[in-house]
Amino acid sequence: MVVFGIDPGSTVTGWGVVAQSRGRFRLVDCGCVKTTSKEPIPERLMAIHAGLVEALGRHEVDAVAIEAIFRHKSSESALRLGQARGVALLAAMQRGHIAHEYNAMTVKRSVGAHGRADKNAVARMVTALLGGAPPGPADITDAIAIAITHLAHARNAMPRSR
Amino acid sequence: MVVFGIDPGSTVTGWGVVAQSRGRFRLVDCGCVKTTSKEPIPERLMAIHAGLVEALGRHEVDAVAIEAIFRHKSSESALRLGQARGVALLAAMQRGHIAHEYNAMTVKRSVGAHGRADKNAVARMVTALLGGAPPGPADITDAIAIAITHLAHARNAMPRSR
Repeated sequence: MVVFGIDPGSTVTGWGVVAQSRGRFRLVDCGCVKTTSKEPIPERLMAIHAGLVEALGRHEVDAVAIEAIFRHKSSESALRLGQARGVALLAAMQRGHIAHEYNAMTVKRSVGAHGRADKNAVARMVTALLGGAPPGPADITDAIAIAITHLAHARNAMPRSR
Repeated sequence: MVVFGIDPGSTVTGWGVVAQSRGRFRLVDCGCVKTTSKEPIPERLMAIHAGLVEALGRHEVDAVAIEAIFRHKSSESALRLGQARGVALLAAMQRGHIAHEYNAMTVKRSVGAHGRADKNAVARMVTALLGGAPPGPADITDAIAIAITHLAHARNAMPRSR
C-alpha cells in the first residue's frame, strides 16, 4: 500500500509518499512547495495546488492523508491555513482521492511518540521507522508522519473530511 | 468596466457579474454554488472551484473581487471558510485574476449603507443601485455588493491579497 501524506501551510506545504510492505515503511518520494510572503496569496495558493497536482500525478497512490485541524491559535491564522488546506484537498480530489484526516495526537501516537511529543520527537520516530532521516524541512517529515498514520490505520479507515 | 464578485462559503458560494457604465450599475449575470453538509468537504470544494471556473469562463471580466476576512467567530469556522475561500482565490487566479479584497465595512459603505448596517440594509441598497432585486439567496446579493465595491474603488485599487 502506498500513501501520499500532505502537511499544508501557506508558506511551506510538505508532501511525502510512503509505501508499506511486510510491516516495513519505505519512503518513495517527498518534497515541498515553498512560497514567500512577498507573493500575493492567490499566487501562493496556485503554486501549492500545482505542486501537489504534479506530485500526485507522478505517483500511483492508494490513498491521500492530511492532518485534521480543529483549533488554531487565532482565527486569522486558521483562515490562512484553511486557504492552503482547501487547495490541497482540491488537488487530491481532482486526482480522485478524498483525503483521510488524522489529528495531531493520532499522528504522534501512530509513529510511536506519546501524545504530547514535540516535533523533534516525531522526527526521530519517523527517522527510525524509515531507517534514515527524510531530506528537507520539518514540513516534509510531518507529511511523512501523516502518511505513516494512514498506513497504520488503513484497515479501519474511512474518509473523515466532513 | 465589468467586475466578478465572489462571496465564498462552504455551504453556499455566491457570485455576481456587475458592469458599470456612465455611473450606472448593471447586473450582467449571477449565480451560486450550493453544497450540502452531507457531502465530504473535498467534494464540496471541488464543486465550488468548478462552478467558479465555469462562471468566470463565461464572462470577460476586468477584475475579480472578494470579501476580506480577518476575524471570525471561531477558528474552526475560520478554517472551514478559509478552505472555500482558498479554492475561490485559486479559481480566479487560474483565470488570470488576483482577486481584490475589501472588508465588510468598506462593502457596506460602498453600496451606501452605514458601517453597522445589517444584511437586509445592504440588500436594499444593492436593489436600489441595480434598479431591481437580484435573484437567489443573500450570498448572491453579497457577491454583487463586493463587485460594486470594486467598481467604486477601481481607480485607486491595488491587489490586496497578501
